[in-house]
Amino acid sequence: MNRRLDSRNPARAAVLHGAGYVGRDLIGLLLRHDGVHLTHVTSATFAGQPLHVAHPVLRGASELVFSASIPDFSDIDVLFVTAGHGQSAAAVGGARDAGYEGLIVDLSADFRYPDVASYEKWIGAAHTRPDLLPGALYSLPEITGDLPSDARLVANPGCFATALALALWPLSRALPPDAPVHVTALTGASGSGARPSSGTHFPDRDGNVRAYKVLAHQHAAEIAQLFPETFRFSFVPASGPWTRGIWGTAQVDLGGAERGEAERTGGDVGCGDGALAQKVAAWFESAYGSSPLVRLYAGELPAMLPVVGTPFADIGWVVRGGTLVVGFAIDNLLKGAASQAVQNMNLAFGWPAAAGLLPRNPSFE
Amino acid sequence: MNRRLDSRNPARAAVLHGAGYVGRDLIGLLLRHDGVHLTHVTSATFAGQPLHVAHPVLRGASELVFSASIPDFSDIDVLFVTAGHGQSAAAVGGARDAGYEGLIVDLSADFRYPDVASYEKWIGAAHTRPDLLPGALYSLPEITGDLPSDARLVANPGCFATALALALWPLSRALPPDAPVHVTALTGASGSGARPSSGTHFPDRDGNVRAYKVLAHQHAAEIAQLFPETFRFSFVPASGPWTRGIWGTAQVDLGGAERGEAERTGGDVGCGDGALAQKVAAWFESAYGSSPLVRLYAGELPAMLPVVGTPFADIGWVVRGGTLVVGFAIDNLLKGAASQAVQNMNLAFGWPAAAGLLPRNPSFE
Amino acid sequence: MNRRLDSRNPARAAVLHGAGYVGRDLIGLLLRHDGVHLTHVTSATFAGQPLHVAHPVLRGASELVFSASIPDFSDIDVLFVTAGHGQSAAAVGGARDAGYEGLIVDLSADFRYPDVASYEKWIGAAHTRPDLLPGALYSLPEITGDLPSDARLVANPGCFATALALALWPLSRALPPDAPVHVTALTGASGSGARPSSGTHFPDRDGNVRAYKVLAHQHAAEIAQLFPETFRFSFVPASGPWTRGIWGTAQVDLGGAERGEAERTGGDVGCGDGALAQKVAAWFESAYGSSPLVRLYAGELPAMLPVVGTPFADIGWVVRGGTLVVGFAIDNLLKGAASQAVQNMNLAFGWPAAAGLLPRNPSFE
Amino acid sequence: MNRRLDSRNPARAAVLHGAGYVGRDLIGLLLRHDGVHLTHVTSATFAGQPLHVAHPVLRGASELVFSASIPDFSDIDVLFVTAGHGQSAAAVGGARDAGYEGLIVDLSADFRYPDVASYEKWIGAAHTRPDLLPGALYSLPEITGDLPSDARLVANPGCFATALALALWPLSRALPPDAPVHVTALTGASGSGARPSSGTHFPDRDGNVRAYKVLAHQHAAEIAQLFPETFRFSFVPASGPWTRGIWGTAQVDLGGAERGEAERTGGDVGCGDGALAQKVAAWFESAYGSSPLVRLYAGELPAMLPVVGTPFADIGWVVRGGTLVVGFAIDNLLKGAASQAVQNMNLAFGWPAAAGLLPRNPSFE
Repeated sequence: MNRRLDSRNPARAAVLHGAGYVGRDLIGLLLRHDGVHLTHVTSATFAGQPLHVAHPVLRGASELVFSASIPDFSDIDVLFVTAGHGQSAAAVGGARDAGYEGLIVDLSADFRYPDVASYEKWIGAAHTRPDLLPGALYSLPEITGDLPSDARLVANPGCFATALALALWPLSRALPPDAPVHVTALTGASGSGARPSSGTHFPDRDGNVRAYKVLAHQHAAEIAQLFPETFRFSFVPASGPWTRGIWGTAQVDLGGAERGEAERTGGDVGCGDGALAQKVAAWFESAYGSSPLVRLYAGELPAMLPVVGTPFADIGWVVRGGTLVVGFAIDNLLKGAASQAVQNMNLAFGWPAAAGLLPRNPSFE
Repeated sequence: MNRRLDSRNPARAAVLHGAGYVGRDLIGLLLRHDGVHLTHVTSATFAGQPLHVAHPVLRGASELVFSASIPDFSDIDVLFVTAGHGQSAAAVGGARDAGYEGLIVDLSADFRYPDVASYEKWIGAAHTRPDLLPGALYSLPEITGDLPSDARLVANPGCFATALALALWPLSRALPPDAPVHVTALTGASGSGARPSSGTHFPDRDGNVRAYKVLAHQHAAEIAQLFPETFRFSFVPASGPWTRGIWGTAQVDLGGAERGEAERTGGDVGCGDGALAQKVAAWFESAYGSSPLVRLYAGELPAMLPVVGTPFADIGWVVRGGTLVVGFAIDNLLKGAASQAVQNMNLAFGWPAAAGLLPRNPSFE
Repeated sequence: MNRRLDSRNPARAAVLHGAGYVGRDLIGLLLRHDGVHLTHVTSATFAGQPLHVAHPVLRGASELVFSASIPDFSDIDVLFVTAGHGQSAAAVGGARDAGYEGLIVDLSADFRYPDVASYEKWIGAAHTRPDLLPGALYSLPEITGDLPSDARLVANPGCFATALALALWPLSRALPPDAPVHVTALTGASGSGARPSSGTHFPDRDGNVRAYKVLAHQHAAEIAQLFPETFRFSFVPASGPWTRGIWGTAQVDLGGAERGEAERTGGDVGCGDGALAQKVAAWFESAYGSSPLVRLYAGELPAMLPVVGTPFADIGWVVRGGTLVVGFAIDNLLKGAASQAVQNMNLAFGWPAAAGLLPRNPSFE
Repeated sequence: MNRRLDSRNPARAAVLHGAGYVGRDLIGLLLRHDGVHLTHVTSATFAGQPLHVAHPVLRGASELVFSASIPDFSDIDVLFVTAGHGQSAAAVGGARDAGYEGLIVDLSADFRYPDVASYEKWIGAAHTRPDLLPGALYSLPEITGDLPSDARLVANPGCFATALALALWPLSRALPPDAPVHVTALTGASGSGARPSSGTHFPDRDGNVRAYKVLAHQHAAEIAQLFPETFRFSFVPASGPWTRGIWGTAQVDLGGAERGEAERTGGDVGCGDGALAQKVAAWFESAYGSSPLVRLYAGELPAMLPVVGTPFADIGWVVRGGTLVVGFAIDNLLKGAASQAVQNMNLAFGWPAAAGLLPRNPSFE
């Protein structure tokens, strides 16, 4: 599905169900992408009204009006679906049923699981279009690599899944199987979407941290398919008092052989740690050294704010006393959703991964 | 209804519909009040469950269980009603119908307006117990003064109403009638109650300020009854990104005679301002100089944080170039609701206004 | 100084003293501007280090390294100065002394006042380069209009000054001289710059609002030069618990003739208000109807969040009972500093005002 | 040092160096404590000024004036020292040198380490009063138990130390020695004290999370002395965007025998988890079941907000798939400092642990 990146002949893009936060951010990225012309954004609630009724920040930046549907799919080169879980499969199916053969990037969970059983276990609902599952490709570009030229339906990863997978993938390939990795990560309120709920009620969210789905988050299952079966990690997700951003740590005892070796060779812990730290650095460098949208921090953990408003994933690590801590941060709405969807479109079209995403305005944090 | 303040023979208190934020704070104050024993808290939703199910902060501090109703009103000396507007009149009426003759402090709007027409205009619903309106006393202690000994139904003022009335009352007595006062004030998200809504959705509230009911807030009407008819003020309410606290300014041009006098006598503005500032100080000192729960700031405007978690109203003023600015701040859940209700109980029982409210823990901000 | 907007032959830009927040945002905008190539950013503190050491968000987006100075001014087409007050005049003077004849946009207060006396009164320090004052042009584009083709030194307005001037300018031309306008406005902590201070200490800023420089802010003096001498307004600035954004209200009693007319013709206030509201709408439409970076809201006040991360100024109004409220909001670092500086460069080069500023990424709020 | 708790004959208390946040909260608690009369608060900076100059929230609640020193130690029954590390040893030494023989509760790190070498390693400065170290008792009441009747110098634990020690202590007694525990915990900005710094600068703290002293925090060393030498835990501290509160998780793989047993006996993980969960519940119940200031949550992790403004430590746990997560939360200024100091005074005087601390006002969150 390769095409030339050409601002005079841009790919015509549409966003289905674009009235939520991810839709808003995706619209913003597409409006700015040199290779893309955004032609339609649909919303049942806002059909007939300008984008800025749902997205006040867009007032003055686009004259587009929400439509109820796509009048003619033959005008579309790429379709993004930012619907809720379940609703998304219906939208994707509707487009296919209407004869649309082009690229679809779906940002929901509907095509992330390898089979119906996994989907239904974790999402807790029946899958309405299992016929489309076999053709779906789960794409977390830095891990799953280039998309095949016939990719037609791309499943964009979840926000926690993106953050965790990027932090853990090098470990999953390098660690001995008896080394459990313990992850704690916090996310901002925009991850819960635009609909008010008790979890996002300001007086209960401000100044608060709350764990949820402890050791039972569906994103852990989503990414487990990327790792060897013997790789063991546990995940405690929590919500924090901010709007955008995921930040977390993964800790593992390098124990056994690794630690023993460190202690033997080092005579003191620092020296052993140094050797371990070099190994760890090599794991991450080899995994992401050439990825334009991953920023690595050797010997320190990344803070959250520098990724907010950016398409980057930040990953850092510290080794001390035989313990390895990997820290990670992403913007849940961008690398965790909208910018990764653009990245996936770029890959599917054979464009540079960061096209339309860099350089960016660093002020927008 | 005078009674002795005696910790060995405390007044037995109950809170009706105590599952909201104001209920929670009121329970906390009553648990700590030496002259009060809290015996019942009702809630339809939480009946049969410990208080801490609705109010996690109370876990370990009280063993009380929500009840569906008050089994025997003859056990109660004072009844607080922290229900929503409309629901409160029903609760008050129900208590009276059940034969309860004791003190009621109602924290809703149901008994704040002088007549049914005003109530229905501003609240937008029919009043369900107009028979009880004639017996209700609107009590903002620093302005309306002591309660008569036969007070049985006290209407506790609204939060914005409390803040504005305290700031404006001295002006309403002193300003020439052609001097309009312009008020802008911001409130925290707890003022919207414990139920999630679009106005309190974290991603839309954090880092945001929004005006609402511009020049049309019901609290302006509530307090207009305290002022001379010729006194003119306008009020722009707004919501701010914090949980507790109201902060605002009232600006007025002292113009005409006042300003002329200042300019004549002063030769320069500063001197005239000084004379005006002295007058203004006298207005506020005479109004609140002996009030234990009003803190005055001459020549500066109070910040918001120092009142949060306290029963105080903070009021300050600056005069410059003939313009007077009065700044004000309260905790909307305390002086704007729960602590003022305790203050009203204190007055009705003939106790010191600040009994049970001071000294307090300054850390709890 | 007109030049073609051409991405293949971009204007070469440099930023002096670019290690602060405004510098960071300006760098971001310039990196994204099709007509500009950013060649140098100076910083005494960070010279020799990559931009991302001072501005972590820029890591991965630019390979530039801070330099101590501009090696050769003949390579520069436009110079932005984002230094502190006082320091900026020295930097501008240094560039001129080094023979630089090109366009300078200065973002400090150093060239905003019409004469040395005003500067020294409001800034409280001697002006170090009074020789350059006569050549400086104060440019708030929507008010002061196009820049002359020989503009060489442009003074970029202050953040509060921008917000207030845009809200008040139409009033200053339309209101009777005896109508004082009362302004209260709040700003975020980024307005205080990147250096920690008691005013930006998190525990004292979070959940707090504080007035400062009450009726004595230097930005009021800055914009007074834009208005007729008879126009009277008072300004209470305050700080709020957020990072980016200015939000405020301006209230005025339309009284006298206006109100009398309304009451006569209306029979009721609403009708008279309607006529007034139409007048007010005409004032603002005629002032800003064709400005791409001002968004108008008739009959409502703008919220703050929709401007955050954008180059827009939002202005709205409500009329009721003879009172007019004008609400306004800007991003203090963008329309209040960096994006307005780009806008001024655009004007000086004869480019569209919003070049490089729109479309933008709406997600970055 | 037992004494009667009697409001008519209260213990006379003084606070040395009471101008910081911990001083403020401690003053608030002492003002409210029935058995205590606060007679002096010292501050070099504020000597001669009312408490509310440093602590605006205290205005109207206390008429005390800061003094430069304690005029006569024979008037004092208990001395709290809320000075910085280093400064505190000097203050304690000064009191002893002046002949004061009574109870001292020191809230700094100066007397928390068992020997000078540990202190100097972790605090990075020489200990100025090593002569006093042997007499100091480290007291974390729920763990170290009652104080001996001759306790004269009590070292109050650090905030992170309190939170971690309470969460880990039961594990340290129950876990097999080869089970490393991984802790990640976040704290609010008040933990950095009242002096502005880059870490508490609002624009860099708001919406941010940052790790610091990764695997190298001095509080880990502080509490290691409470645990068996074979107990291994790692600690990643981080700062979060809120003012008060510590929240964290401790994860451990119950593996080996425990997990094997679970899998054998269970047939499925859930059942094995249930058995493990019961064991874990027994560990925590036996440790804290009778502690009035620890609240336990079986099968869930505590949120942070319900402890803010309270003297409680909240601890909960979840077991799933052989992994145990312990969650914990405290108010860093109260259970992490001021209220724990009161608790220690209570113990030293033979009073109930929670005297003066409960019931409390639940509104103050």
